[in-house]
Amino acid sequence: MDLKQYVTIVEDWPKPGISFKDITTIMDNGEAYKYATDQMVEYAKKVGADIIVGPEARGFIIGCPVAYALGIGFAPVRKEGKLPREVIRAEYGLEYGKDILTMHKDAIKPGQKVLITDDLLATGGTIGATINLVEQLGGVVVGCAFLIELTYLDGRKNLDGYDVMTLLQY
Amino acid sequence: MDLKQYVTIVEDWPKPGISFKDITTIMDNGEAYKYATDQMVEYAKKVGADIIVGPEARGFIIGCPVAYALGIGFAPVRKEGKLPREVIRAEYGLEYGKDILTMHKDAIKPGQKVLITDDLLATGGTIGATINLVEQLGGVVVGCAFLIELTYLDGRKNLDGYDVMTLLQY
Repeated sequence: MDLKQYVTIVEDWPKPGISFKDITTIMDNGEAYKYATDQMVEYAKKVGADIIVGPEARGFIIGCPVAYALGIGFAPVRKEGKLPREVIRAEYGLEYGKDILTMHKDAIKPGQKVLITDDLLATGGTIGATINLVEQLGGVVVGCAFLIELTYLDGRKNLDGYDVMTLLQY
Repeated sequence: MDLKQYVTIVEDWPKPGISFKDITTIMDNGEAYKYATDQMVEYAKKVGADIIVGPEARGFIIGCPVAYALGIGFAPVRKEGKLPREVIRAEYGLEYGKDILTMHKDAIKPGQKVLITDDLLATGGTIGATINLVEQLGGVVVGCAFLIELTYLDGRKNLDGYDVMTLLQY
């Protein structure tokens, strides 16, 4: 299946000059969504993931079905103030200023093999912070899987030493 | 499986007097997450859903694996400004003021049978707005499935005439 034909390119969103890759047209097509998820599931098996971790909200769309398919858990990474119990934090840089991602302190057990999922690998900032959170909890990041990679932003250089899999490259 | 034992009750969150039902401890347990999702899948089959719709972000955690399991699509409902293409809108009341939910204008095809999923049925405000969005697009809401129902808030009265299924009641 040529998954790229299900991606909708939206020019000048969220701001002028950006060519946004809209994945909702993969998700709302049952065959395309299943095909994409099945590739993620195969990768998760290959790296031996015990649990899936994904940042809100599109990381949930990618990672939750993978967790379900393998009968393993899913632990969410959320913005500050969204998780109800004791959390750990990691900062990451935005174009202007910083933002904070959090995970519940008990979300990962030490030694668990973690696959991180998200829709998009751009500069790798969000995923760098997610790796930081997982490692603070003693988890072992066995892989990072993305639907789309913007190769010209070279996000892989921020994920040096980690196994990275992407389904579509632009 | 007694799924309630995997729910963590967090007192006084997000504010004093609220007894929050934290479902992350269902999600991060592979068996509990699979068990909960399997019940949702059975319900989706029973009502004959063609597509799953869920509001961000916890509605994604519930609905995406159901869509994957059935090989059908998932269409996200998001806050204003999060979806990149032309959207339709629905307002819903908050304790103070209003908020807006959006869907892509092409997310649902007229006549599609839609199952709406979310983690929690409280007053039903979010789900009422989600139903409004689906019906604006000509979708037919064949069911609403929730992990948890707070029966004392009587959210079902706002969903009168719709089929509602909840896994856990408090």
